[in-house]
Amino acid sequence: MTDATPPSAGRPAAPRGLSRRGLLGLAGAGIAGLGLGVAGDRTVIAATGGAGTAAGYPFYARHQAGIVTPAQDRLHFASFDLSPGTSRADLIALLRDWTVAAAAMTAGRDVGEFGAVDGPYDAPPEDTGEALGLEPAGLTITFGFGPTLFEATDGTDRFGLASQRPADLVDLPHFPGDMLEEGQGGGDLCIQACANDPQVAVHAVRNLSRIAFGKAAIRWSQLGFGRTSSTSTSQATPRNLFGFKDGTANIKAEEPAAVDEQVWVQSGDGPAWLAGGSYLVTRRIRMTIETWDRTILREQEAIIGRSKGEGAPLSGGSEFTEPDFDKAGPDDAPLIDKAAHVRLAHPSRNEGRRMLRRGYNFVDGNDELGRLDAGLFFISFQRSPEQFSAVQLSLARNDAMNEYTRHVGSALFAVPPGARDGAYIGQALFA
Amino acid sequence: MTDATPPSAGRPAAPRGLSRRGLLGLAGAGIAGLGLGVAGDRTVIAATGGAGTAAGYPFYARHQAGIVTPAQDRLHFASFDLSPGTSRADLIALLRDWTVAAAAMTAGRDVGEFGAVDGPYDAPPEDTGEALGLEPAGLTITFGFGPTLFEATDGTDRFGLASQRPADLVDLPHFPGDMLEEGQGGGDLCIQACANDPQVAVHAVRNLSRIAFGKAAIRWSQLGFGRTSSTSTSQATPRNLFGFKDGTANIKAEEPAAVDEQVWVQSGDGPAWLAGGSYLVTRRIRMTIETWDRTILREQEAIIGRSKGEGAPLSGGSEFTEPDFDKAGPDDAPLIDKAAHVRLAHPSRNEGRRMLRRGYNFVDGNDELGRLDAGLFFISFQRSPEQFSAVQLSLARNDAMNEYTRHVGSALFAVPPGARDGAYIGQALFA
Ligand code: HEM
Ligand code: HEM
Repeated sequence: MTDATPPSAGRPAAPRGLSRRGLLGLAGAGIAGLGLGVAGDRTVIAATGGAGTAAGYPFYARHQAGIVTPAQDRLHFASFDLSPGTSRADLIALLRDWTVAAAAMTAGRDVGEFGAVDGPYDAPPEDTGEALGLEPAGLTITFGFGPTLFEATDGTDRFGLASQRPADLVDLPHFPGDMLEEGQGGGDLCIQACANDPQVAVHAVRNLSRIAFGKAAIRWSQLGFGRTSSTSTSQATPRNLFGFKDGTANIKAEEPAAVDEQVWVQSGDGPAWLAGGSYLVTRRIRMTIETWDRTILREQEAIIGRSKGEGAPLSGGSEFTEPDFDKAGPDDAPLIDKAAHVRLAHPSRNEGRRMLRRGYNFVDGNDELGRLDAGLFFISFQRSPEQFSAVQLSLARNDAMNEYTRHVGSALFAVPPGARDGAYIGQALFA
Repeated sequence: MTDATPPSAGRPAAPRGLSRRGLLGLAGAGIAGLGLGVAGDRTVIAATGGAGTAAGYPFYARHQAGIVTPAQDRLHFASFDLSPGTSRADLIALLRDWTVAAAAMTAGRDVGEFGAVDGPYDAPPEDTGEALGLEPAGLTITFGFGPTLFEATDGTDRFGLASQRPADLVDLPHFPGDMLEEGQGGGDLCIQACANDPQVAVHAVRNLSRIAFGKAAIRWSQLGFGRTSSTSTSQATPRNLFGFKDGTANIKAEEPAAVDEQVWVQSGDGPAWLAGGSYLVTRRIRMTIETWDRTILREQEAIIGRSKGEGAPLSGGSEFTEPDFDKAGPDDAPLIDKAAHVRLAHPSRNEGRRMLRRGYNFVDGNDELGRLDAGLFFISFQRSPEQFSAVQLSLARNDAMNEYTRHVGSALFAVPPGARDGAYIGQALFA
């Protein structure tokens, strides 16, 4: 345990190359294979229970983690722009370094060859150290590529990638009511770090942004503090800041057919490098919760189309009963309002289109009027951005909820498939 | 369990007046005493294990909770200004309502007479609902009064409180290097909500701010995501965003003599209404972590005066060994640098002055240059603000750490003692 290292005054020069958490679980299991290399560690870590209570999610896999992974409770999302002068080779080197660091951190290890505090004294520590002693906490790190990676806003093809651009990877259309703010959207690259401990998610983004120093800088970023969806039937449905259950009708990991049909890009959908990947949409949606809080309960439920307590459709039943949009009340009006959010968002009204929602609540201080700058950082994964756009267009036009929301940020990224052990994220793009 | 209430379509009108979590633990224990009143509930809730796994901290007590309470992991802090036209009677009514709501929420109940979702349909729900089904999560709510409550910036005595103003309750002095930003400090009233679940802390501030509607509005607010101190010997020392253990030499609840001498205002210190209270200082300290991360380990440790791994003083020993500021190394220079943070902050250099630190990490997005807007939201409690000011003056002048920090927000509040059951927070001030 590095925590038991004697203080520097009498600190021995060795041992080095031991990771903060690796050591815990691996003492006695042979540590020769550790260090910068990541091959094989995952298995060992999984076998020993992840050097603690949680094994962490494997980084090297067919699909990137952080999509169908059971939604963790905290988010740190960062969008990056590549710096002027960064070459194709620099970009590849960055993706390689990010891959190695992400594999290490998701397994609960430091980013460097030396433990956070066991490096040489005359160099900056390779890891920033604030996650020392913490568990992996279910950390996943998911990388994405923005449209501008393939064609800059001035039309240049900085990295020789134009021919690999998926036809679908273009800026989302402008939707009615959009009030997008400068600096809250877009980006060449993105990192979604999710964990059950915010310090672990922040640590991941901080260290990846540090590795990118000189090559890429954060364009915008967002912390989220409570998941607003479930992505697994093993999870309870959480509540969003309107006080309603959110995630009930989401695509769940336990529906592999829906996941394949709606979430993963299939071979044949576009360029080969993206098969097994997905498209990631983010929308920063400000909620005017002060106004919402003064709205009567009947109206709140009519807007959502579900009851506030249990989250059951207003057509009756319990949380997981399918809504019946035709069922009418004594006054002949449909029990689920024409402008209700769940009616407009339901696949039956959108030619079967679904998406995997994975958003987070945010509260970022307050505005000049003393209102909380609060809302939903909406994240969805889908096989094609068109799934999101079609549903969002219908919502933007008619959703009764719009009176209480304002879309202020928007971004789209193509999420490459997972990397196999030894490869780096997005490698097929540069083949 | 309100979650099992049938959806509105077939929802029965009764039962009402049942709290979301109270019901869980109280079914069969007689519920007649519940509802708006709070008397007696705490005992029952404690006895039944708090309707879940955590009993919550009692709100009615000699001292306010949230000071020597073991530091929880998350913070939502809000500073309020009273609105123009608010009278002394309005202020008293607000403190009464806040007291009742705080007592309910810290016991894991909703703020209203009706459960969050069991109120009448034609009124806004009395509770915003997003904490429905969550445990109390160690919630504490701590109230404070700013200097402007006693004398507005234009010199007026809006609430007839000028004669009750403690001599110590004046704005903190300007310290060398201060770079205070507009709208990041001051305030008539403050609320510190701490919990182990951020949704619970946010829920508390949101509902209290809602109760204040028309009387007081948020002036500034801050979310914190990881405690940077321990206030009990039962807690492990956490790490701040410099990657160092923070809280080692803090005042702990288990030192009652130090708590009495350094934290609680004693009768005779000033006006009687504040005896048993404390002074709360907040400083929003931005940390330039990108620069810090490029500083070599030896230098980082010299700046703090402790080792990064274990947090032991550089004069030797382990984490809880007392630093020896006179001990010199082979080169005759003191092992703990002259400008080290722990030397300058140590009571032996400050005529015995100590304080109870209770701060939180924050990351609030990033600036235009792509640097994280990150740092330490410093909070300390002390018997007199002078304890803070003396130490801060010495730090502001000489601390080697100043190269990596910037104080951008500052506030001071007098924290009244706890309320006894049936009374309201600060009641003695209006006697
Ligand atoms: C602040 C903004 C939003 C809030 C508060 C919100 C809230 C909700 C709630 C409470 C539900 C019902 C429970 C559930 O099935 O999860 C729901 C369902 C849904 N929402 Fe949203 N939502 C928001 C924005 C969006 C956006 C931007 C989209 C996509 C364009 C979207 C797509 C959906 C879909 C597809 C469903 C499931 C509908 C069904 O199949 O029944 N939502 N949302
Ligand atoms: C970003 C700003 C700051 C950082 C990163 C920081 C960090 C630390 C660290 C790592 C320690 C050693 C461990 C411990 O005993 O807790 C410490 C100790 C201490 N700090 Fe700070 N600190 C900051 C600001 C302040 C401020 C503004 C004050 C008060 C004016 C303060 C007062 C103290 C005191 C009293 C101690 C204990 C010293 C002793 O008795 O050994 N700190 N701080």
